[in-house]
Amino acid sequence: MARPLRVYVAHLEPGRRELAADAAHYVGDVHRLRAGAAFVAFDPEAALEADARVIAVERRRVVCELETPRPATRLGRLNTELLQAVGKGEKLEEVVRAATALGARSITMVAAERSVARPDESRRTRLRGIAIEAARQSGRGDLPALAGPEPLERALTAYAERRMLKLCLDPRAEMPLVTRIADHPVEASAALLVGPEGGLSPAEIELAVASGFERVALGPLTLRTELAAVIALGCFAARLAGDPA
Amino acid sequence: MARPLRVYVAHLEPGRRELAADAAHYVGDVHRLRAGAAFVAFDPEAALEADARVIAVERRRVVCELETPRPATRLGRLNTELLQAVGKGEKLEEVVRAATALGARSITMVAAERSVARPDESRRTRLRGIAIEAARQSGRGDLPALAGPEPLERALTAYAERRMLKLCLDPRAEMPLVTRIADHPVEASAALLVGPEGGLSPAEIELAVASGFERVALGPLTLRTELAAVIALGCFAARLAGDPA
Repeated sequence: MARPLRVYVAHLEPGRRELAADAAHYVGDVHRLRAGAAFVAFDPEAALEADARVIAVERRRVVCELETPRPATRLGRLNTELLQAVGKGEKLEEVVRAATALGARSITMVAAERSVARPDESRRTRLRGIAIEAARQSGRGDLPALAGPEPLERALTAYAERRMLKLCLDPRAEMPLVTRIADHPVEASAALLVGPEGGLSPAEIELAVASGFERVALGPLTLRTELAAVIALGCFAARLAGDPA
Repeated sequence: MARPLRVYVAHLEPGRRELAADAAHYVGDVHRLRAGAAFVAFDPEAALEADARVIAVERRRVVCELETPRPATRLGRLNTELLQAVGKGEKLEEVVRAATALGARSITMVAAERSVARPDESRRTRLRGIAIEAARQSGRGDLPALAGPEPLERALTAYAERRMLKLCLDPRAEMPLVTRIADHPVEASAALLVGPEGGLSPAEIELAVASGFERVALGPLTLRTELAAVIALGCFAARLAGDPA
């Protein structure tokens, strides 16, 4: 309830500075902070935060004073890496938002057979902004690594060599996800492959299995791909305790 | 992939009939079915479905022939009842959509201290439409019961008498949700209370605990209330196997 306002500030350094336009709008217009008001400046890309105070607000400019940065207190704690096949439209945004709030370690966009979109660099920049906003809302002090897009086959080849729990969502799997992860230590690494709308092709599932991925299900009904990704990550997160602070 | 188109048709009866405007648009304009095309008509409120065939499409009218209805094949299998405190805006819609696709048994809207909106009958009608659409997409042949809005206190009083697993999401709980439900039989009843944006008040949590609800967490980060509700239900659903069909 009484958590201080968190404001994204890149490249934290102690001293006086003017906030960037987005942050100034957020501080001055949305939350109407005035001179003297305290907030926390956070830079999730460096996993740093700093106490800050508004010095002056005038029109679209906000000047503030930053204290010495410290390591962020709450970091993403899910040691889970998401391999998300790219869908169309806003779906990836929804996944990035939730995966960040759940504490996922990385999100790699992969292009599968039935992927519609082929995201480029500009999409990744946009996703980075969404991850920063989700970090702010959730109180997370760092970001998931965003990678890709890369072809599914190449991603699977890279994972074939890695020893960790590797799961692939498959609506026809007989093994329920929660049953499979029951004995997986909470802090241990895991990778999670989620297909695009329409699913992974049989050949892709075969390739994933050959790379050490196990097929798991989220129940008998058909879920939208982004809902499936969010829930699968959520099942990992829901093995962690809350924040007593 | 090759699942037939599912079309919502109220009050299924064998014989010839004209589709309602929404269904006619969906069949004729969105999917461009023509005379002779087969689809499945489903009525999730009665948990029935029937094979159907398009007889004629002309302008905005679609006439079809229905076979004798049969019980729907895939029903919601989560014996979980959601008590969702009402937020503002579209959030409840997101929860109803996901809860239906996950197979939840009921969704009761409750008004908590920090609830902003006070949904009325018209909102419940709208939510019913969203649940029908989610049932169509997910292949579910029935609907969750939609109830409320009612005051949280009254809902808790009703649940106090019921013997079942009763959980209340609390970001400060030390017990992780997945740990708590690990030994709960997959088919057994459960109730799940989720607060509004801003959370349940300390007094409300106390009242829930006094009514037999146990506090569980979904991890240390702060989740939007609708994401928390969806993930909590998802953790129940992810204990079920997939659909091998």
